[in-house]
Amino acid sequence: MSTVKLLEDHELPPASAEVFADIRATRKTDFVNNFWRTLAHDPVLLKRTWESAKQVMAPGALDPLTKEMIYIAVSVAQSCEYCIRSHTAAARAKGMTDAQFMELIGVVGMAAETNRLALAMQTPVDEAFKGV
Amino acid sequence: MSTVKLLEDHELPPASAEVFADIRATRKTDFVNNFWRTLAHDPVLLKRTWESAKQVMAPGALDPLTKEMIYIAVSVAQSCEYCIRSHTAAARAKGMTDAQFMELIGVVGMAAETNRLALAMQTPVDEAFKGV
Amino acid sequence: MSTVKLLEDHELPPASAEVFADIRATRKTDFVNNFWRTLAHDPVLLKRTWESAKQVMAPGALDPLTKEMIYIAVSVAQSCEYCIRSHTAAARAKGMTDAQFMELIGVVGMAAETNRLALAMQTPVDEAFKGV
Amino acid sequence: MSTVKLLEDHELPPASAEVFADIRATRKTDFVNNFWRTLAHDPVLLKRTWESAKQVMAPGALDPLTKEMIYIAVSVAQSCEYCIRSHTAAARAKGMTDAQFMELIGVVGMAAETNRLALAMQTPVDEAFKGV
Amino acid sequence: MSTVKLLEDHELPPASAEVFADIRATRKTDFVNNFWRTLAHDPVLLKRTWESAKQVMAPGALDPLTKEMIYIAVSVAQSCEYCIRSHTAAARAKGMTDAQFMELIGVVGMAAETNRLALAMQTPVDEAFKGV
Amino acid sequence: MSTVKLLEDHELPPASAEVFADIRATRKTDFVNNFWRTLAHDPVLLKRTWESAKQVMAPGALDPLTKEMIYIAVSVAQSCEYCIRSHTAAARAKGMTDAQFMELIGVVGMAAETNRLALAMQTPVDEAFKGV
Repeated sequence: MSTVKLLEDHELPPASAEVFADIRATRKTDFVNNFWRTLAHDPVLLKRTWESAKQVMAPGALDPLTKEMIYIAVSVAQSCEYCIRSHTAAARAKGMTDAQFMELIGVVGMAAETNRLALAMQTPVDEAFKGV
Repeated sequence: MSTVKLLEDHELPPASAEVFADIRATRKTDFVNNFWRTLAHDPVLLKRTWESAKQVMAPGALDPLTKEMIYIAVSVAQSCEYCIRSHTAAARAKGMTDAQFMELIGVVGMAAETNRLALAMQTPVDEAFKGV
Repeated sequence: MSTVKLLEDHELPPASAEVFADIRATRKTDFVNNFWRTLAHDPVLLKRTWESAKQVMAPGALDPLTKEMIYIAVSVAQSCEYCIRSHTAAARAKGMTDAQFMELIGVVGMAAETNRLALAMQTPVDEAFKGV
Repeated sequence: MSTVKLLEDHELPPASAEVFADIRATRKTDFVNNFWRTLAHDPVLLKRTWESAKQVMAPGALDPLTKEMIYIAVSVAQSCEYCIRSHTAAARAKGMTDAQFMELIGVVGMAAETNRLALAMQTPVDEAFKGV
Repeated sequence: MSTVKLLEDHELPPASAEVFADIRATRKTDFVNNFWRTLAHDPVLLKRTWESAKQVMAPGALDPLTKEMIYIAVSVAQSCEYCIRSHTAAARAKGMTDAQFMELIGVVGMAAETNRLALAMQTPVDEAFKGV
Repeated sequence: MSTVKLLEDHELPPASAEVFADIRATRKTDFVNNFWRTLAHDPVLLKRTWESAKQVMAPGALDPLTKEMIYIAVSVAQSCEYCIRSHTAAARAKGMTDAQFMELIGVVGMAAETNRLALAMQTPVDEAFKGV
């Protein structure tokens, strides 16, 4: 059903198995979701993507739940079902309430609408917004 | 330069002038940015969009700065320069730091990348993420 | 400024010059806009695109102005400034009023918003809409 | 299957039940499609979206069928299956013929193609199209 | 399941049957995939699309496999499942290896990410890249 | 003009200066383009993006020019002017001819068009394309 085979644990290239071990240790669960099982065909791409995800989604100037909600917003704006579903699950696991989710999608919808209005009218950027 | 003329205050249809008055009162500033000056040709659309924006961006289950960052994320994912610039300015006015902005765009970039990876591989949604 | 040079009339490959002659004859004007002047580097691509445009935009089950408005809607949804501007000019030349343009962009904005809401909620398609 | 539960009539928050009553009265049918059943979790968002839809899609400078076709065009350009299917059904209910639908998608496809050509070549906007 | 009926061979309009004959002769197989079976409702659109596809995908300055990979890249960036699947199959039939496919999607993901970073930062185009 | 200041060499955080040294050594030129000068505000994001770019764009199962053309295709499909211009320059530096560029954009345009046609018709995926 995927364009590359979903790999079971016993089918992993050794370098991918190492990344899976780190995913399990980091997330403290045996469950490894399908995204990594398709990416595992290419151990270099798998490792780079996982290391990036760990770094990008770690607490920093923004908290992890805010980051998950931003992730959902982009995934909706780009029409990626897998990503909408997996990151909505992740956000809920990090405490996102139903009320927060509905407000999140309200903002996404409003932004989508005004993006198109501004583009259609080719509204010129105000001097005050011209940046640094 | 826009596809509809930017309206100066003295050119506003009366119903649009009323909305401008509310924008100024709500934001406590005389400045009305170009988005509203292009939209003002259609008082009904202007009023509906302004009322929606007030409602959607108000503090609720999410705080206003988080909402601005979600707005930026969508605007980037949809390639709207006007919206990126105006909402980056708005987020900064609400306290967004440089570090927060750079983390925000890091998440946006990561989401954009993994969206495309999941789509290319047509990764099937895990049972665990199938939703409610 | 473009990624391929804008070709003046005297720089056209002969096969592109023939297409330009047909553009002028069909549109009854000497003006040939920049889109065709960049495409003219590849006479085969130029001819194919022009022939397609003539066929697609001709009156048929839909009238030419409706077609121009659909063209604008897509160009806005895909963030193409050149196309927004050139087809807005074309639609105006075919009689689009300011009121029609503002309603058009109202629909585009509304559609953009509800698209994102439906995607975010992963609303399942109703049986009644499952198609033929 | 959706990321928020589809609400049956007896599960609606009271404020959402009121909106459903108006949807039924306005459309003169008991059928309320799934989009509203997912949105119903947030009565404020539901009401705002429904009121906007009524206003935007009402006859005005453009007729309702033209508006439905513009809606479909945007939904296709933004890859929203739910919206493509629900608005195709709506357009057919308003009289869209097969020939009109095929012409509509011909224009959408042509616009999608030339959007990308113009972007790839970074064709500069003609002075004649620079707007108002 | 589609918005227009999939046409079986015996249901084809005569002009569409002629195009199907050419598809079969050109591809040296009796199999005609569903894309053409939905498009066949409109013989003019079918013929134009098929003739364009033959011309665009033919060997030229780029080889057919490179063209298929570019096709996949666009289809991923635009979220079209049908096109991702059909052109991945086509690329494999033309010799694309698993390693090539994984590198292709690595590039697509990287491009998607840096596109969004550049847009978010509104990085100005370097003089050196300003084009011809 | 950008939303974050373009950093000159003497303004770089030390960790970003190290990355710039590697960019110069790897590319064998003193020129560092603006993308990196905006990203340099965040040394971690800068380093991660540069290391990824080096890895992804290196010769492998696909040659570097093919990778640049795929990069351009995605950038066009996502409307990123900076990326279209910088990667077109990069592809030309790697030997892309005018004829190759025009064929590339021909494929991008064709893919963009058929993506939308397949989506509009909701063409079901053929069994033969259902993947592995």
